[in-house]
Amino acid sequence: MDNARSPLFAAIDLGSNSFHMLVVREVQGSVQTLAKIKRKVRLASGLDENLILSHEAMQRGWDCLSLFAERLQDIPSSNIRIVATAALRSAKNADVFIANANQILGHPITVISGEEEACTIYQGVAHTSGGKGKRLVVDIGGASTEIIIGEGFEAAALTSLEMGCVTWLEKHFKDRSLTEASFKRAIDGAKTVLAPMVQRYRELGWNMCVGASGTVQALQEIMVTQGMDETITLAKLHRLRKQAIGFGQVEELDIDGLTLERALVFPSGLSILIAVFEELGIESMTLAGGALREGLVYGMMDTMQEHDIRKRTIQSIQSRFQLDAVHADNVAKTALSLLAQCGENWVKESVGPTLLEAAASFHEIGMTLGFKRAGEHAAYFLSNLDLPGYTGAQKQLLAEMLHHHREQLVPISGQNALSATSANRLLRLLRLAVILCHRREATAIPPFTLNANDDALTLSLEKGWLESNALMANELMLEEQRQSDNYWPLIVEA
Amino acid sequence: MDNARSPLFAAIDLGSNSFHMLVVREVQGSVQTLAKIKRKVRLASGLDENLILSHEAMQRGWDCLSLFAERLQDIPSSNIRIVATAALRSAKNADVFIANANQILGHPITVISGEEEACTIYQGVAHTSGGKGKRLVVDIGGASTEIIIGEGFEAAALTSLEMGCVTWLEKHFKDRSLTEASFKRAIDGAKTVLAPMVQRYRELGWNMCVGASGTVQALQEIMVTQGMDETITLAKLHRLRKQAIGFGQVEELDIDGLTLERALVFPSGLSILIAVFEELGIESMTLAGGALREGLVYGMMDTMQEHDIRKRTIQSIQSRFQLDAVHADNVAKTALSLLAQCGENWVKESVGPTLLEAAASFHEIGMTLGFKRAGEHAAYFLSNLDLPGYTGAQKQLLAEMLHHHREQLVPISGQNALSATSANRLLRLLRLAVILCHRREATAIPPFTLNANDDALTLSLEKGWLESNALMANELMLEEQRQSDNYWPLIVEA
Repeated sequence: MDNARSPLFAAIDLGSNSFHMLVVREVQGSVQTLAKIKRKVRLASGLDENLILSHEAMQRGWDCLSLFAERLQDIPSSNIRIVATAALRSAKNADVFIANANQILGHPITVISGEEEACTIYQGVAHTSGGKGKRLVVDIGGASTEIIIGEGFEAAALTSLEMGCVTWLEKHFKDRSLTEASFKRAIDGAKTVLAPMVQRYRELGWNMCVGASGTVQALQEIMVTQGMDETITLAKLHRLRKQAIGFGQVEELDIDGLTLERALVFPSGLSILIAVFEELGIESMTLAGGALREGLVYGMMDTMQEHDIRKRTIQSIQSRFQLDAVHADNVAKTALSLLAQCGENWVKESVGPTLLEAAASFHEIGMTLGFKRAGEHAAYFLSNLDLPGYTGAQKQLLAEMLHHHREQLVPISGQNALSATSANRLLRLLRLAVILCHRREATAIPPFTLNANDDALTLSLEKGWLESNALMANELMLEEQRQSDNYWPLIVEA
Repeated sequence: MDNARSPLFAAIDLGSNSFHMLVVREVQGSVQTLAKIKRKVRLASGLDENLILSHEAMQRGWDCLSLFAERLQDIPSSNIRIVATAALRSAKNADVFIANANQILGHPITVISGEEEACTIYQGVAHTSGGKGKRLVVDIGGASTEIIIGEGFEAAALTSLEMGCVTWLEKHFKDRSLTEASFKRAIDGAKTVLAPMVQRYRELGWNMCVGASGTVQALQEIMVTQGMDETITLAKLHRLRKQAIGFGQVEELDIDGLTLERALVFPSGLSILIAVFEELGIESMTLAGGALREGLVYGMMDTMQEHDIRKRTIQSIQSRFQLDAVHADNVAKTALSLLAQCGENWVKESVGPTLLEAAASFHEIGMTLGFKRAGEHAAYFLSNLDLPGYTGAQKQLLAEMLHHHREQLVPISGQNALSATSANRLLRLLRLAVILCHRREATAIPPFTLNANDDALTLSLEKGWLESNALMANELMLEEQRQSDNYWPLIVEA
């Protein structure tokens, strides 16, 4: 099949630990996953000391690729990218493996350099993560670790290091014992590998740091399971290292939230990450929404024009669900104006306006399913949709805000993107904005001023306005009661 | 505002019991509700014996309309329909009420004749109900009852009778006592009103019967709450009549599933419905998806081309959620072919193929939210979406089928659209069709034959086919195990 306009795309990544296949469909500027297939081929473990790949390891790889091949048949070749990374970069007999693999797949495999890998990872992160300023990206693979600094879609520094969670496992945890000493050796070893790049990276600097791949994903799952917030810090990494040492052996690891599948390479990945944190002086890290495979997929699409990822996500979701973007924008502007009038410190976290804007942009999404329980539906959508540019905790907050954005007011709990005070203050403003815009016309929004005195809000409208707008007056009166009943005084005056 | 291309529409219905306002948005051939406002104005109860409307009743009406007026401001007048029915048809001083009401609304009210009302109700039903052949429609209002026979969008007979649940309440249950005698009087009275039209309607005949409006809606809610299936029969109506008599007084009515709001006019509406069932010889009735207000709204839209309502619903949902219609169609055709090969009696209910086709048409809807829990998402969507042409019980069955249409197999329970045997047989075929079409190309579906021997299925593919299609062979083998583990033997052979 060679229809260049097919919306189907596939990316295959022949990694040192696993082979992955990702099949997606492009839907109005969004990427919808159709299939994700992963096989633990463990190619790197089939490399001997002379860097010769064993026949058994190659056979495992070929078997996996013949499964993938079946799914590739119906995707145009211009929409397929297949890359191989560290294990095949270093194997001296890689050509033997590749020749047969190309036959099986019917598509050529490209062995990419470490720098190309880093560059593609950066694109995958840039297309799926929000925020402004310089970004430090860390991706710990099976046999290599990529570290990148970039801004927007431009990478300023690309580094690929020959250490990964599989190779570090074999080198420093060969006997599978978890001791202070084995961790120290693994961490110190990683620091030696990092040493040549540290100064350059520290000089370039960054405003935020994101991590990609299995190790960081595993950390995230552990933290969520254990009820911590989603930010990775050095203190948390050392706490987990100590927990791991307590179990003595890799096979005995029983950390809440750590899956069996990830356990084997967890101590080695953790050691590398600790070394990266300490050498570069990273304060905190969040999980990226994508990496290598996403970079391959987005690289094939030419329609991704909007480079502000959060804006792109908002536009794409509004278009996919046929939301009334003009009305949503009016609500967002009104909400932001309300927030601005409360003063800078009323919501302390700097991400506050961004989240309020997103909540307003999506606020009618639940009506897609039905008018009656639209808030509940919206929460269901936001909890489950993929929202590039927003972290997991931020998605959860947005879901909570939309659940009760109209009608009955239920205070927000069960989120950790913001303090509870800030989250509920944003909710109050969102609700007011929705009411003020209920006629769905920018010209019909009444002029207002909002005054905040700690939790007490006073909304002032023009004299006589309430009298001539009975329906909105009625809704504002109900809202006064609802907020005040929650010990959040609200006075509406005209 | 007078933008004729606005997607917003409003319909207002000044009924004898309540005034209703419906604001909708047209989204790719679907009607999305934005607001529903209802006020119990009880206009009919303000009519004296000389058919003069009291000033108090008029004032209640005007107050209600000034609330509605605020919402009308931003909708183009070409997209607004306002009609008044029985109470204002008969009030001798209706002009006094209307003149002031027109002022308040800023839009003209049309007092429609009984025949026009019947015609609009029929359009509302035709646009929201499925099924082929002649359709008998019964709508019991506050002060009139409309009975229509039609086919497709053409009404063949229109009747509007001067009896309704409010007038029958005042006439036959004035003292609010519920006795055999009061019910007999109410039913006999209704039969007298019905008499002149009975023969003509019996001669015209019909293939299915649907009921609209509050009384039928209340019956539906009672039956669902009490765990009965959704079909209204004369036996069930008499059972409810006896239950009601057991409570003695309207104020004491405490029937499971009957809301306080509907209780007052329930006995009178029930009496009229029993008379209609007995006089016309109706065997069973289901609830219509819409009536007067929906008829007004659809009447303003010129884009509703597709006149097969179920097909329109499938197309509209596929388009709204950007489903891959070609692929869905392949799965539907494959599923229907599997069903046909099982023989006519394998799924006894004649609606079986229709429901299998709908399930296949929507099967990827859950991927809209995410790949991982797509079955769960699909069930959530189907339970909550408005699906004109499918009844509530059918929607629930579709939700259950899609919940486990792939991966783990969980037998269907908790639906009453079909027998459990039939529902699970359809599920088995849907799952097989999804696997057989997994390459998403009509040309890649293997030729197959399916043989059914009671619950045992044998799927035969061409010799050698499985060997050259490892991924599908693997999925079919898993499916053999999953179905067979549920005591539903499945053999896949080639």
